[in-house]
Amino acid sequence: MAGRENQRKGLTYKDAGVDIDKAARALGEMKDKILATHIPGVLHELGSFGGIFDLEKAGAGKGVLVASTDGVGTKVRVAQRMRVYDTVGRDLANHCVNDILVQGARPLFFLDYVAMGSLEPPVLQGLVEGLVLGCRDNGMALLGGETAEMPGLYQQGDFDLVGTIVGYVPGGKVITGEEIRPGDKVLALPSSGLHTNGYSLAQKVLFAVAGLRPEDRARGLEGTVGEALLAVHRSYLHAVFPLLEKFHVHGMAHITGGGIPDNLPRILPAGCKARIDAGAIPRPAIFDLILEIGGISMEEAYRVFNMGFGFLLVVPPGEEEALARDLRKRGEEVFPCGEIVEGEKGVDLSF
Amino acid sequence: MAGRENQRKGLTYKDAGVDIDKAARALGEMKDKILATHIPGVLHELGSFGGIFDLEKAGAGKGVLVASTDGVGTKVRVAQRMRVYDTVGRDLANHCVNDILVQGARPLFFLDYVAMGSLEPPVLQGLVEGLVLGCRDNGMALLGGETAEMPGLYQQGDFDLVGTIVGYVPGGKVITGEEIRPGDKVLALPSSGLHTNGYSLAQKVLFAVAGLRPEDRARGLEGTVGEALLAVHRSYLHAVFPLLEKFHVHGMAHITGGGIPDNLPRILPAGCKARIDAGAIPRPAIFDLILEIGGISMEEAYRVFNMGFGFLLVVPPGEEEALARDLRKRGEEVFPCGEIVEGEKGVDLSF
Repeated sequence: MAGRENQRKGLTYKDAGVDIDKAARALGEMKDKILATHIPGVLHELGSFGGIFDLEKAGAGKGVLVASTDGVGTKVRVAQRMRVYDTVGRDLANHCVNDILVQGARPLFFLDYVAMGSLEPPVLQGLVEGLVLGCRDNGMALLGGETAEMPGLYQQGDFDLVGTIVGYVPGGKVITGEEIRPGDKVLALPSSGLHTNGYSLAQKVLFAVAGLRPEDRARGLEGTVGEALLAVHRSYLHAVFPLLEKFHVHGMAHITGGGIPDNLPRILPAGCKARIDAGAIPRPAIFDLILEIGGISMEEAYRVFNMGFGFLLVVPPGEEEALARDLRKRGEEVFPCGEIVEGEKGVDLSF
Repeated sequence: MAGRENQRKGLTYKDAGVDIDKAARALGEMKDKILATHIPGVLHELGSFGGIFDLEKAGAGKGVLVASTDGVGTKVRVAQRMRVYDTVGRDLANHCVNDILVQGARPLFFLDYVAMGSLEPPVLQGLVEGLVLGCRDNGMALLGGETAEMPGLYQQGDFDLVGTIVGYVPGGKVITGEEIRPGDKVLALPSSGLHTNGYSLAQKVLFAVAGLRPEDRARGLEGTVGEALLAVHRSYLHAVFPLLEKFHVHGMAHITGGGIPDNLPRILPAGCKARIDAGAIPRPAIFDLILEIGGISMEEAYRVFNMGFGFLLVVPPGEEEALARDLRKRGEEVFPCGEIVEGEKGVDLSF
């Protein structure tokens, strides 16, 4: 056996690139912030094997659960490049909140997974700080998480971030889209930018093709390219949830990977086609910049990016205006952008 | 803007290394297998934004939830190297099941996250196959998941695998360890090998230092080095759950990262120290191989690896023998390995 001479040296876990105490210390310093996310219902103390949650104590005794897992894609690389670590956690929390909101669910708790090539406490703490902010903004508990130091799989400085949300639908009234009918109207809530999709293409275009740096300014952008790319994924919880009690919302779609053409059909019943006017919503300047430099076709762009459409609401024709008024009264922008017609399930997008 | 000449070419998401249709097709072929995990309680159809779960329909209406997120660490690299993709999913499911079992929880549902540098359908399908097997073995639903193609962050062929479990504690009787008293006995259920911890050190020792290849044989191992490393993380659900109704189990610990010294104290009340005899359980040969080649100290080894101790049960002194008999009658191996004594919270490990 070749390595016998190493016997005197005595290999340790640290020699293999893993320092489990470092992670524990870094997270220990975040304890109070994590505890501040603990809404009624959280029963465990930090450090237990699993996070314990009492639905009745959280006021969610009667309802069904909705759960979803997601990451923020290669947006982590922009964060890494800019050394800004406290926004991707908010992105992730908000993304997950929106993914269950479309079914009428309110968030209850969230668990995270952070993987790094080499554990850097300030990076880990920045990421957790963002997760804590995202959880608090949406009134959910950061119930648990895992920190993995994986040398070799992730390069030095690289990290990935994954989140899982569990929420509940009050009274069990899940919104599936099955009530959507021809004649229904579609309303759009604007995105803040790319949210968490299309970052591989965006970075290829802006950094590799155009040779821009995150700190550069470019036509149309208010701040730098990096700032535009890191704009936090919006949570639509506070805008949308109050609507669900007052109006008959037939369906909702969160526009993520696959864009409008992939996401809106997920809630359409058979025989319902959506006609969407792409021009109905002002497009954040970052999209035009990427499209122009990359020479990206409109068809491609609308499948990769949200193109300004963050979240869609499908409502019966009579309720469209009152619902929009309600949103605007609460300071929310909303744009009528299309309707449901008879036809094969899918989306007709006019540019 | 440098890249203007690319306008004619027209960049696509595929050019940036992301093919969203490929993932959808690969998962579409797994649909029936995923549906086969759907225990009563699952309400959604595949492709919905979030997975929907009705606790009452699953017989879990009265109880509290326990949730946990984990990965399988750099065991993914062994799987990749051996091109065996259907075991790490089982590892992950079983690991998560054990992590909530220690609190008295039964699994309900599971969500996965698979990230890859470049999406290879057979790899993705193998991983999902393993997750499906792991979910079925433990009677839980594979409720949702996310597949992320992240060129640049993960190298070609590399992948990471993350899982989140949600279970419930019948009647809300969470086992915290607070009933543990001096005089209690500790029983160990054997591990099948490294389970999912210590792989960075194990690979460094066996592959980098000793120059072994996964297909090599080595002293003491029944199969190859790779086979020993890939041995599936055991689920203790079916061994342990029946005990919880018949006996007063005061506490349980799943021995993962940090070993016995980090995991057992997580359930000990103040004033309780555990005395554990490391020699009480037969040690799988892979550990001796790694320790010998790496010259790893016993102290270090017991913090990095489980060293044969998969799962610990702490029971009142009167019940130890009946509980062991019950396990053995059901074909389970169990080893008395120590006791609780008065002292500062911690573990005295004798080698």
